[in-house]
Formats: sequence, C-alpha cells, structure tokens
Amino acid sequence: MGQRLVVIGLDAAGGSAASQARKRRPDLEVVAFERGRATSYSACGIPYWVSGAVRSEEALIARTPEQHRANGIDVRMRTEVTAIDLRSRTVSWRDLDDGREGSEGFDELVYAAGSVPMRPPVPGIDAAGVHGVQVLDDGVALREELSRPGVRRVVVVGGGYIGLEIAEACRVRGLEVTVVDRSPTPVGTFDPDVGEFIADAARGNGIDLVLSDAVSRIEVDDDGRACGVVTGSGRQIEADVVVLGLGVRPNVALAREAGIPLGASGGIAVDVRMRTGIEGVWAAGDCVESWHRLSGQRMVVALGTHANKQGRVAGINIGGGYATFPGVIGTAITKVCDLEVARTGLSSAEAQEAGFSFVTASVDSTTRAGYFPGAEPIRIKMIAERRSGRLLGAQIVGRAGSAKRIDTLAVCIWEGMGVEEVLSLDLSYAPPFSPVWDPVLITARKAFEAVEADARGE
Amino acid sequence: MGQRLVVIGLDAAGGSAASQARKRRPDLEVVAFERGRATSYSACGIPYWVSGAVRSEEALIARTPEQHRANGIDVRMRTEVTAIDLRSRTVSWRDLDDGREGSEGFDELVYAAGSVPMRPPVPGIDAAGVHGVQVLDDGVALREELSRPGVRRVVVVGGGYIGLEIAEACRVRGLEVTVVDRSPTPVGTFDPDVGEFIADAARGNGIDLVLSDAVSRIEVDDDGRACGVVTGSGRQIEADVVVLGLGVRPNVALAREAGIPLGASGGIAVDVRMRTGIEGVWAAGDCVESWHRLSGQRMVVALGTHANKQGRVAGINIGGGYATFPGVIGTAITKVCDLEVARTGLSSAEAQEAGFSFVTASVDSTTRAGYFPGAEPIRIKMIAERRSGRLLGAQIVGRAGSAKRIDTLAVCIWEGMGVEEVLSLDLSYAPPFSPVWDPVLITARKAFEAVEADARGE
Repeated sequence: MGQRLVVIGLDAAGGSAASQARKRRPDLEVVAFERGRATSYSACGIPYWVSGAVRSEEALIARTPEQHRANGIDVRMRTEVTAIDLRSRTVSWRDLDDGREGSEGFDELVYAAGSVPMRPPVPGIDAAGVHGVQVLDDGVALREELSRPGVRRVVVVGGGYIGLEIAEACRVRGLEVTVVDRSPTPVGTFDPDVGEFIADAARGNGIDLVLSDAVSRIEVDDDGRACGVVTGSGRQIEADVVVLGLGVRPNVALAREAGIPLGASGGIAVDVRMRTGIEGVWAAGDCVESWHRLSGQRMVVALGTHANKQGRVAGINIGGGYATFPGVIGTAITKVCDLEVARTGLSSAEAQEAGFSFVTASVDSTTRAGYFPGAEPIRIKMIAERRSGRLLGAQIVGRAGSAKRIDTLAVCIWEGMGVEEVLSLDLSYAPPFSPVWDPVLITARKAFEAVEADARGE
Repeated sequence: MGQRLVVIGLDAAGGSAASQARKRRPDLEVVAFERGRATSYSACGIPYWVSGAVRSEEALIARTPEQHRANGIDVRMRTEVTAIDLRSRTVSWRDLDDGREGSEGFDELVYAAGSVPMRPPVPGIDAAGVHGVQVLDDGVALREELSRPGVRRVVVVGGGYIGLEIAEACRVRGLEVTVVDRSPTPVGTFDPDVGEFIADAARGNGIDLVLSDAVSRIEVDDDGRACGVVTGSGRQIEADVVVLGLGVRPNVALAREAGIPLGASGGIAVDVRMRTGIEGVWAAGDCVESWHRLSGQRMVVALGTHANKQGRVAGINIGGGYATFPGVIGTAITKVCDLEVARTGLSSAEAQEAGFSFVTASVDSTTRAGYFPGAEPIRIKMIAERRSGRLLGAQIVGRAGSAKRIDTLAVCIWEGMGVEEVLSLDLSYAPPFSPVWDPVLITARKAFEAVEADARGE
C-alpha cells in the first residue's frame, strides 16, 4: 500500500514541499490542509496590492488550489489542523466553513504552519478598525477598510519593513499616515546612520514618524471602533484605521502541543535537511528556526524566499533525494518611497552582540559613471572584522539601481571573503552600469584601509 | 638623494600607480610622460560622448594634468617616450608639439602605455574618413566628422562592444549604420544563442548587421576620402564615414625593444604584484597580460577597471606596501540599445577550448516579481562543469535592471562555487526587486538539475 504525506499549510513552504515530494514519488499520496482561502501566494506583495500598484488579488497567487490538485495533491481548503498525534501518526482537522471534523493518518508530515502577527497586549487591540497585514484575507479587509468613506488618518504600529511598506501604500491612497516605532530610526535592523536616510525618505513622502516610542493604548469610540492611539510618552494620535506592522512570530502552538521540539528562538528546531526531532516529521518556512552562518546562532527569519527553499529541500528529501538548507546571512531589501535599502550579514549591533570586534567604512558614490545620464546616489556601508578583514556585514541605501548590489556582497559574506579580496573582484564595468570602480569595490577598498589603519593602531 | 619613478602613460593604470606610489612615499620624485592631450579619462565613455548622452569631453576626465601636479607628480603632456634603456636606467623622450628631445633617469619604472587599435591590413585603411575610437582625441575627430554636412551613412568595422556602442551612437545622431563582423552573431564572446538577442536588439534599433563577413577593402573617392567598403563575400556598402571598432592590442613596441619580457599572449608578462621580469620595472593596464582564474591561461583584457586595479597594486608595491592583482574571470557588460547584456567566467566556446566538459541551462524570468509594475524580461544562461557542478560561466540578457546581476555570479565563479550551493544563496528578495526565486537562483536550480541528469546518464 502507498504511503501518505500530510502537509499542514499550503503556502510557500508547504506548497514547495508537496510539489517536490510528489514529483519524485508519484506513488506518494499527498494531503494538504490550508486554513485560508488561498494557496501559495505572495504575502510580500500585499502592501503593493493595498497601494494599487498591483492590480488584483489574483496576481499575487503563484499556484491556486486547482493547480495543486492538477499536480496530484489532495488539497483541503479552509480546513484547520487542530491536533497532531505523533504516536498514532494522525492529524485531526476541522472544516472552518461547515464545522465538519475528521482525522487523517500520515507516514510523513510537513509542518508549514507559517507565522502569526505580533499583537501588542495593549487595551483596544481587538477593536474594529485594527488590522493586521499578514495573510491575503488581511489585505482584502484592509483595502475595504481604507476605502470606507471618511477614512483619512492611519496609524501604523511598527516601523519595520512591512510597517513602512503599508505606510507608503496609504500615502499612495492619499491618506495621512503616522508610523510609531520603538527604535530611534525606522527598520531597526539597519545601523542608525543608515536608518536616518530611511527616516528622511519616509518623512519626505509625508509619513509622520513617531520614534523611540510605542503604542500603549488604542482608543475606542462609542461604536467600538478604533479612533486613535496613545503612546508610552503620552502622545495622542487620532486615527480612523490602525494597522499592525510589528512583524510576526512562528506559528508553533500545534507543534508544541504535539511534542515536536522547538529551539531556543521559539521556532521549530530543524537540521539541514529540514527534519525535526521526530522521525518522518519535517518543518519549513516561517515556523522554523534557521542557522545564521556568521553569528552561529539560530533565529527565526520569516521570508518567502527562505520558505520556498526550505520547502523544496524538505520535499526532495521526502521524495528520496538528498538536499540541504545551508543557513541564512540576514539578507533583506526594501523600497521606502524613492529610496532603495538593503542589508546582508550582520549590522553593527548584531556583530557586537555576536562577539565580533570590527571596523566600519561608508562610501558615497553613484550607480553609473558619474558623467552618465541617470547616475543616482548610492551609499554603501561595510562592517569588517578587525585584523582578519573578513566582511561581516553590508548595508546599501540609494536611489534607483542601488540596492540589488547587496547580492554581490551577500555572496562575499557567504563565502567568508576578506575586504582586500573583495576590492580585487572582477565585477562588471561599463559607464551605463557603474563607475570604473564599482561602489562595492570602492567601499571594500575603504574598509580595507580601515582594517589596516586599525592594525597599525591608528 | 631621493629616488625617481618614471611613469609611461598617465591614464587609468599609470595615474593610479603614480598616485599610490607618491602617497606612500612622499619623498619619491614621480615623472609621468603622457603622449596625448588628456590624462586619466574614461575611454569607455567615448561612445556616449559621441552620441551626445554625455555632454562634454571634460566630463570624461577623472583627473586633469593640473590635479596630478597638485599631487606632486611632474606631468609631461604631449611627450612621447621613444626608448627605454634598461642598463643605464633612462628613458628618452620627445615633445610632440615642439620636437624637443631629452632623457630622464629612473630608479623605478611603470610601463602603462595602454593599447593600440587593431587596424585591418586592407587597402584604403589610411584614407580620410576612416576613424578609430580609442583615445579621447579620436572621439573629438569622430564627432567632428559625423557633424560634417552630407554625412549620412556610417560603416562600423567590428561588432564587438565598442563597435555596437559606436553604431548606437550614430543611430542616436540620426545616421544610417551598417556593422560588419566576422562572427555569425555580434559580440562573439557571448554564446550564439545569447548573441541572437543582441542581433535582434541592434536590428530593432535600425542597425544593419552584416555578419559572418569581413571588410576586405575600403573604397576611396577621388579626394582620397573613404566612400564605402567591400566585404569578403563581395558585398558593397556605401559609406561617408568608416569607424574601426575591432578592439585593441597591447602597446608593447617600446617594451619589446627595451627587452622587457612579453608573454605568449603578446602582452607584457607580470607577476601578481605587477612586476615585469626586470627588477624595478612594473607594468599595468591594457599592455599587460592577466591570469584567467578559470582557464589558467594568460590573456590580454583591455578594460579600465582592471587598469585601475593593476595601477593601484603597482603603486602600493612601489610605495613599499604589499598588494596583489589576483587575476580576471572575463566579466563584461554593455547596453545594446534597450538591451542589457553581461557575461562572466567562460563562454561555451571558451570552456571547450580550456578543456572543460560541461552542461548548460537557460531560464527566462523577470527582473521583479512578475506581478509588480516594471517587471522586465531577463534571461540567464549558466555553464556548469559536468559531475562537480562548478559554475564555469554565466551570461545575462534582458531589459532594464537585468545585467548588473552578473556581479553576483562573478563572485560565485571567483570563489569556485557549485551550482547547488548557488541556488541556496541568501540573496535579497522583495517584489520591487525580484521574484521570490531570484532569476539567478532559478537558473542555478535548473543548471543543477542538468548536472544531475547528466550524471544519471540521461
């Protein structure tokens, strides 16, 4: 008799795992449970759908339930897995629409339940008009809310990637927006000097930033609707809509109850093949912890690109192949209005935290030869280990054509290169694409000079 | 008494060497001879000045003679070095304007004489109206020529980078342009399937391509002016101006006469510190040969970015420091009308020539998430070694935002990475910058599948 794979969550990680496993073992029965109304969609695209840059909800869907079914996957939509029994190797499920319940046995299990949005434990958090932006249905609800007559003022709680992306989307819709964030500069995973550029870009686009402060209460009107926020410093900000952009935490409740081991970071502990501590139970995506190749620490990084890769790795292994997920180095990129920003490796604070001793160097240059039309400003900052000169981190901020250069530095960091070798790299040069010394090379050169000066005790 | 450094040629390589040496040894007397009217300019920018995209000749000059003098360099403009005597350690020079001659002793010598354009040995090559585009003065002359009343038709000899760039510049100026090239597709250093895209882009911009053919004669009118070309296949093409875009060869005549050893490639042989075979004699830039890190061969690559790096390395070493130039991997990039193209590592033909056995994979994707406004087509081709999966080469062709991704792959090749590891890289992802699987990763994935299928004997 054939074996059965059960997949919990049919988004990026679960979808990739199911497809790969099924492709390699056509005899494998694959049953996938998805709580939501959509499968395999781009959560990262939601802010751009809210802004109108992306025209339709459908555009965000990479693979529909029907397409998964055509690949031989038994898809159960709007069906929540309510328990996992590792002894009997069964999952219990409930249909969220008609309330039916049942159970399904498995030989192999992929846990890809994703993440849940952070909700600050403040009064008013459950009022009408308070929105998350994590799943596609959140996007639907938020778009409707923002289109309501009379909606004019939005407060976004959290000034990270998603918070700023949503704030910008609201500006595109002509709304007044205030972003409240605990850090002194937005997107606190950047160094503060880079964060200042982000703050300037947001403010330049009419986004009001309330920094080094946090929402302590959401004010609710007589109809039970959110009508403003109060911050820790006592500031009162009126709002017709409140959006939670605080990021996410791994959705591990079911796994924990079942006895699937978690890591210290709170995510599910997995090895390089995406195996959990339980034989035949795999996990992938936002719910797992990943190994950071520089700090050596395990951490949860909720990002679609990792989820896809991890799901693929799990699926190949379930399918009888051999694949590994070799860890992360903290690469991220975003657009804040006209500003492109990106990072890879460790920030200064992260490098310090991980115990590194380092020097930094920043260089202002241009995306093309300075004399070439369309040359835009770019700033690169590098963090290099003292003495060894190993590149530990890089941050880029600039206008069009700047930020994707981070990938070049991501490979350098991935490979453990020193800044002296980075400055010698054979990178592409022609006037429409870079100065004769690419900004990446100039910054490596300056970082190398900083390493040398430090070694001489200057 | 202080020592004297003599520099022959004060463009990218010579300028960098002189600056670095002087900075590190302020006691060093530096005398630099430059044959032309300008120092340290961007030869690569000439086509864009010819087209008018770059507004002035001055914009192309990175450092003027006066700026070099302010750094303490004794600059002798329009002065040609006519001989090098290695026994007496002197150079002989001649002022090209007033004919004065003299000599100068040296302790250290940097030979940075650059390159000379290839001139096919065909009848008519020396006629009026036949132009090279190598030095800034060539650009001045060509601009004047193209502005002459009655000039309507241009034939460009050679369809490599410079040939196509000049052809496009002529189109911008509203001229009829024909490019003649020996290869079946333009820019023969790309694989033919990629070259087809280049050909289409050029033709789409109204450039007439005559391929697999070569100019055998330049026709000259009664006034001694070029008026057309005849090709090997017998084709006759009328022309008011003929531009030579065949590339360059190292300018080594002086070095050879002096007894500075050349390599088999025809360039000056240097070690990693840019030392020639003669004590105290250094060389850098278009006139030297470089080590190709994949093929292991020595070759001449005339490119401003290498010249700058090599000059810097020579200057640091002359200045008492320690620096090396670790070789090249054949990275190049250009824009052909609206098409961006780039390559790194070995092409299929080069890999074959170097003795590698390999598989290839090509993927069509988009520069941004497919649903994101401004997503443009991009095609990446990878060449991976059989069995080992080592990435040997990559080529990119696409619209805006495509080609600079080559740098990511350049680092992968530099580091000797296999395609399986490339597909696992932590590259940046957000919808305005890439699909959730960046085109680089998708192509690596497909290349890995090709390596696996090959190993299974499929």
